[in-house]
Amino acid sequence: MSQSVAESLAWVAVDWGSSNLRAWALDARNRVLARTDSRRGMLSLTPHDYEPELKRMIGDWLPPTGRVPVRICGMAGARQGWLEAAYLPVPTRLDDLSRGAVRPSLEDSRLEVTLLPGLCQATDDQQHGFDVMRGEETQLAGLCHAATGRDGREEALSPVTGLACLPGTHAKWAWLEEGAVTRFTTCMTGELYDLLARQSVLRHSLDHPASIDDPSDPGNRECFIAAVREINEAPAAFTARLFGLRARDLLDDGLPVGEARGARLAARLSGLVIGLELAGLQDELRLESAAARDITLIGSDTLCARYALALSTLGHTSHTLDGESAVLAGLSLANRTLSQAAMNRASGA
Amino acid sequence: MSQSVAESLAWVAVDWGSSNLRAWALDARNRVLARTDSRRGMLSLTPHDYEPELKRMIGDWLPPTGRVPVRICGMAGARQGWLEAAYLPVPTRLDDLSRGAVRPSLEDSRLEVTLLPGLCQATDDQQHGFDVMRGEETQLAGLCHAATGRDGREEALSPVTGLACLPGTHAKWAWLEEGAVTRFTTCMTGELYDLLARQSVLRHSLDHPASIDDPSDPGNRECFIAAVREINEAPAAFTARLFGLRARDLLDDGLPVGEARGARLAARLSGLVIGLELAGLQDELRLESAAARDITLIGSDTLCARYALALSTLGHTSHTLDGESAVLAGLSLANRTLSQAAMNRASGA
Repeated sequence: MSQSVAESLAWVAVDWGSSNLRAWALDARNRVLARTDSRRGMLSLTPHDYEPELKRMIGDWLPPTGRVPVRICGMAGARQGWLEAAYLPVPTRLDDLSRGAVRPSLEDSRLEVTLLPGLCQATDDQQHGFDVMRGEETQLAGLCHAATGRDGREEALSPVTGLACLPGTHAKWAWLEEGAVTRFTTCMTGELYDLLARQSVLRHSLDHPASIDDPSDPGNRECFIAAVREINEAPAAFTARLFGLRARDLLDDGLPVGEARGARLAARLSGLVIGLELAGLQDELRLESAAARDITLIGSDTLCARYALALSTLGHTSHTLDGESAVLAGLSLANRTLSQAAMNRASGA
Repeated sequence: MSQSVAESLAWVAVDWGSSNLRAWALDARNRVLARTDSRRGMLSLTPHDYEPELKRMIGDWLPPTGRVPVRICGMAGARQGWLEAAYLPVPTRLDDLSRGAVRPSLEDSRLEVTLLPGLCQATDDQQHGFDVMRGEETQLAGLCHAATGRDGREEALSPVTGLACLPGTHAKWAWLEEGAVTRFTTCMTGELYDLLARQSVLRHSLDHPASIDDPSDPGNRECFIAAVREINEAPAAFTARLFGLRARDLLDDGLPVGEARGARLAARLSGLVIGLELAGLQDELRLESAAARDITLIGSDTLCARYALALSTLGHTSHTLDGESAVLAGLSLANRTLSQAAMNRASGA
């Protein structure tokens, strides 16, 4: 396996986040030869740890001679990461991310590492608050890139216009205009859910992770939908609704008992936090043009399905792009741009 | 000291919460002879631990003979506490709490322990969600009792009508009508602040506890007020504003540097969570009659001052009752009712 990887390896793609990293070996036509991952994200590393960790992860893939490009997006490029790739301010075209890329100095001459930058929004008004993203911009580039295919033929950025949402610990909403991010908003939804479900008084009442997709038991799904509607109508009641989950557990005879009770309440909490996020975007979602109204969700199937259900509850349509495909497509685009620039430099162009 | 306590001791008041307890020795005119506290709250105790812990706390106060009434409010009366004193459903008159009191069996015959009940709201509609309180009802009884004095003369409940707020981990808002709680709402505000400030990604950006009262630096106070206004106008933006704190720390050149920066952001977080709580009550606050519009805050000076500032920012007036005075007055009222009932039983009345 490793033998054949080394034979066909053209470059390595890495998504290096706060708490984990994923790496892919790709051939010259961007086909995945191998993949690996680890829990050694930015939060557990000092700058000197990155090169050894990278070699531990991908060392088996490398040929004995030659130089392999490694394209990295995510928190490894943060100030507290390997080497800072400063944020590019929006608006930024998604085929222009490599403009802000940086190269850490390396001990191993077989590697040529590039760290891609994130995006920032450094204005403070009601519609455009201060905001940052690092890693998601590459998935957004992948969304635009995916439209043009990744089969080795000449690739370009598709000028996507519309609204994309990347659910997660810090959910990102990005407005795209002809392949550029014009503005974005981050909601602390996933982290809020985890803190409340695992660390607050509600942990005594919830069984999580909440499942809303069991066809044999539609109760959780109904709880989720009701919570999305309820908080959308009265978002300011959020902190009261949170404690209401605990009181419901103590008092509500209408809930099932045992694990099913905790699952209902976890589905309700999920509906409250995702519903609050969507309530905050409702005015803008209503104003979007018809073409932009079909929201692109980028991420894991489970989480995207939950967001799709919440969106449809409030009258919005959406479709899903797998998160891994998106980041690979985005890194492929960056790799092509960076490799082309290197060739141009080499040929004196 | 203990000698003189034992000589004058008439009864013992205890506020036994989730994470700590406070006990007071009182004479026949409800004057405090001594006080003590410990961190051994309900969460760290099994039912068998309560009597030994109580004797460890107040043993020195007890006279060698005779029987001392001990009146306890708070989580010691919860199902997972010493012995359950079942919730009384609202509406409940605050001089009627002892109706739901229970007596655990004891080894030491010098003690006569009574656990007071909490209140519950077991209906589920938009205005009256499921809710519970345990401990705060005794402070509310104290609010009504305080109006009549605690100097040993015949005491009765003052028929207070109005709105009371008890800020804290789980902030309680109670509507009082002529000395009865007609309904109430709990907001998870304090717990939400603590989770976000100590456990979330925001912990890297905040210096807490937030101080908004330093007269030499009005910046924190201004940050707090601005956040209260902002979230009151757009409560649904809450999860976006949370992440915005982190982004502000990374990007906002207008903020001071060092600890002052973290203090500004902590004041802003405090304004966002307290402002969201008030935003949820705004419609009702506006509808309150003029007489009820002056809200009574019950609790610590610091926290009540912060709520008073948030309320005045939104155009509401308030005054403060010290939390310890309130709980002592409420337990005094319960003690009088329970002692009177015992005398009536003894005299065959």
